[in-house]
Amino acid sequence: MTILIKNILAIEEKDSDLYVEETSIYIENDRIVDIGNSDYKADIIIDGKNKLAIPGMINNHTHAYMSLFRNYADDLPFSQWLFDKILPLEDKLTGEDAYWGTMLGIMEMIKTGTTCFTDMYIFINETSRAVDETGIRASLSRGLVGSGDDEEGRRRINEARKEIEYWKANGNDRLSFIVAPHAPYTCDDKYLLNVIDFARDYNLGINIHLSESRNEIAEINSKYKCSPTEFLNKLGLFDLNTLAAHCVYLSDNDINILSEKNVNVVTCPVSNLKLGNGIAPISKLIDKGVNVCLGTDGAASNNTLNMFKELQFVTLIHKGIEEKADVISASTGLKFATSNAAKALGLENKIGKIKIGYKADITILDIDKPQYYPRNNLISALAYSTNGDEVSTVIVDGKILMNNNEFLTIDEEKVKYHINSISKRLFI
Amino acid sequence: MTILIKNILAIEEKDSDLYVEETSIYIENDRIVDIGNSDYKADIIIDGKNKLAIPGMINNHTHAYMSLFRNYADDLPFSQWLFDKILPLEDKLTGEDAYWGTMLGIMEMIKTGTTCFTDMYIFINETSRAVDETGIRASLSRGLVGSGDDEEGRRRINEARKEIEYWKANGNDRLSFIVAPHAPYTCDDKYLLNVIDFARDYNLGINIHLSESRNEIAEINSKYKCSPTEFLNKLGLFDLNTLAAHCVYLSDNDINILSEKNVNVVTCPVSNLKLGNGIAPISKLIDKGVNVCLGTDGAASNNTLNMFKELQFVTLIHKGIEEKADVISASTGLKFATSNAAKALGLENKIGKIKIGYKADITILDIDKPQYYPRNNLISALAYSTNGDEVSTVIVDGKILMNNNEFLTIDEEKVKYHINSISKRLFI
Repeated sequence: MTILIKNILAIEEKDSDLYVEETSIYIENDRIVDIGNSDYKADIIIDGKNKLAIPGMINNHTHAYMSLFRNYADDLPFSQWLFDKILPLEDKLTGEDAYWGTMLGIMEMIKTGTTCFTDMYIFINETSRAVDETGIRASLSRGLVGSGDDEEGRRRINEARKEIEYWKANGNDRLSFIVAPHAPYTCDDKYLLNVIDFARDYNLGINIHLSESRNEIAEINSKYKCSPTEFLNKLGLFDLNTLAAHCVYLSDNDINILSEKNVNVVTCPVSNLKLGNGIAPISKLIDKGVNVCLGTDGAASNNTLNMFKELQFVTLIHKGIEEKADVISASTGLKFATSNAAKALGLENKIGKIKIGYKADITILDIDKPQYYPRNNLISALAYSTNGDEVSTVIVDGKILMNNNEFLTIDEEKVKYHINSISKRLFI
Repeated sequence: MTILIKNILAIEEKDSDLYVEETSIYIENDRIVDIGNSDYKADIIIDGKNKLAIPGMINNHTHAYMSLFRNYADDLPFSQWLFDKILPLEDKLTGEDAYWGTMLGIMEMIKTGTTCFTDMYIFINETSRAVDETGIRASLSRGLVGSGDDEEGRRRINEARKEIEYWKANGNDRLSFIVAPHAPYTCDDKYLLNVIDFARDYNLGINIHLSESRNEIAEINSKYKCSPTEFLNKLGLFDLNTLAAHCVYLSDNDINILSEKNVNVVTCPVSNLKLGNGIAPISKLIDKGVNVCLGTDGAASNNTLNMFKELQFVTLIHKGIEEKADVISASTGLKFATSNAAKALGLENKIGKIKIGYKADITILDIDKPQYYPRNNLISALAYSTNGDEVSTVIVDGKILMNNNEFLTIDEEKVKYHINSISKRLFI
């Protein structure tokens, strides 16, 4: 299968700088094989007029199944949100519910230009099944919670192992796995050592929540007499490639550790604001050379999986907090969601850029909209003027998943039907 | 002309509480004449299936013509943004440019569900002409800058007078006027007294920028030995109904003054973040009973006029800053943009609510989109899950301005054509 995207404005990257040029992109099977030449005969030709091609957005921290809980528990203190609302509801969920919740999440992600996501979930083989069927790319992880060698903790690791083994035999390279100890306050030191061994066995990286709230800092400090970052570092967890989500509360020493150990920080600004947790010290992390990426977290604390919304927040809030209009530029924010994100997943030579030899993971926006006039700076426009609904066509692994706003791999009405049924059962 | 919006989910307000009900809305000419009865024969019937009707959003602080400067000067320190970029460009503008810039702004506002806006501009009869032609509602003001009795200052007041007189003779009740001394740092005390006299002559309210930056606080303090709020209060400006935009830096005494004098504060969170100015103390203002509304500011510092984006920011950032997930709820934020905004304009018995006897200023959203599933809480959805592009139909003064995403009063292609021409001339 070949696709030619003809005469389109495209965001490319050279020497770490993003730039815009009008060009053509030629795709053979799963790869971009040429840029700049429009003289190809292709199976599918996409007219680039009034369109903008960008590397597919990468959402590096979410819980897609939680789209079921969207707008269910808002404007509540964190503990009430979690203990009175979210956890009791999660108890009622079945694997099938999680599958449809994930399908809804994937629908929203594709519609808003996300081509790859990093997910943490409870039910194995549901998110992976949804990813396999829909054609999106993902880094998947069963959330692990436990203490010492307790049975529940071991059961969860065994489930994760089972899922990884299954997809090793039956999967494709759009599905990859990562090991997800939930957080320092839900996994004790002994359990974390077991999890590290498990990750080493499979040569996989780590996906963990870190320093999300003041409570976590207090709890870990009281238990281990150090910060959550210091705690994980002592255990050797950061010797594995790690994605640490949130990182709202960090001491200077924590930042030094994250920098020295090349930990990838996934900031989730909307979730941190929404739950009243605070604002991560992103400029300090950048100054220390930390690789920063971007995530939406689940829809229960956002309440969307729209990476353009997240990009607006990450490029705007730090300017206000630091009282400096020139921090976290549009370009910097966009890299959080593309090339930095790819690097965090160890996929920096495969995705995150529109580049010859890279996977054809491309998002095309229809920019013939008021918010895209005049076109003074398209990189600024992506950060400051894009709603997400401009996305019209999405290509992953060389396959068109959405064409002019029409899903080609998802039966949208079927997903909505199931969401409505589950919703009626759960929320009565 | 009669319109029946049949069997639609609608946001209504009772005893200051917003609620959702499925209902029907019957419109005769410019007014809502019945709610709840679907047995009308109407000239136009709008099917409410999978739709949500809300009071049209009111953007209480913008400079619509500045849509021309969208994404022109980003990620720059404030003084560089203003003096090196925006002001030199503004010098090159003609009245005709401002008209087309305003048309672009109105297009974007209608497309994102805004039915009324408060504008401050340089060129008289351009914004008003655009408002008159497009059918949107607006509160208009020529920005006034001057010192003492200087000629330039007098010229500006005379221009404002001329415009008000013209539309008194030729206008309609969608166009109203307000008097706009630009800011305490651009109008001295003597000039402000002249402006107050002018406003009294016409029995009009005031639209002013207030306490936007630390520089302003320092400048006014050095000149008048008080805060900008105290300065305006001493002059008696707050004896007139006042919309004060920004209000980022306020002392406790300032907040008391704003409360006692019933000043309406128009918070512009995105602009304040984008220019590195900071975050307004909105919770404190609410605690003191101040009427808070919402504005986008101009597209040069936002970079959209999308009130749903603004609503997301105002309902999210304060939760993070104050570390309290229950401040500025979805419902509170939505009232900033509807009933509070109407009150600020003295139109609280005419607009800002879907209510019998009120003007038919109604925004209809197509909620058959992934981000609107499941429908756990539609008021939350408006604040936390809406991009703005869900808006499909907009009614102002009983007239449909956009029907299923199609403009009925604006030639969209013509506006884009002119924006492109102006853009080529200005930005080379």
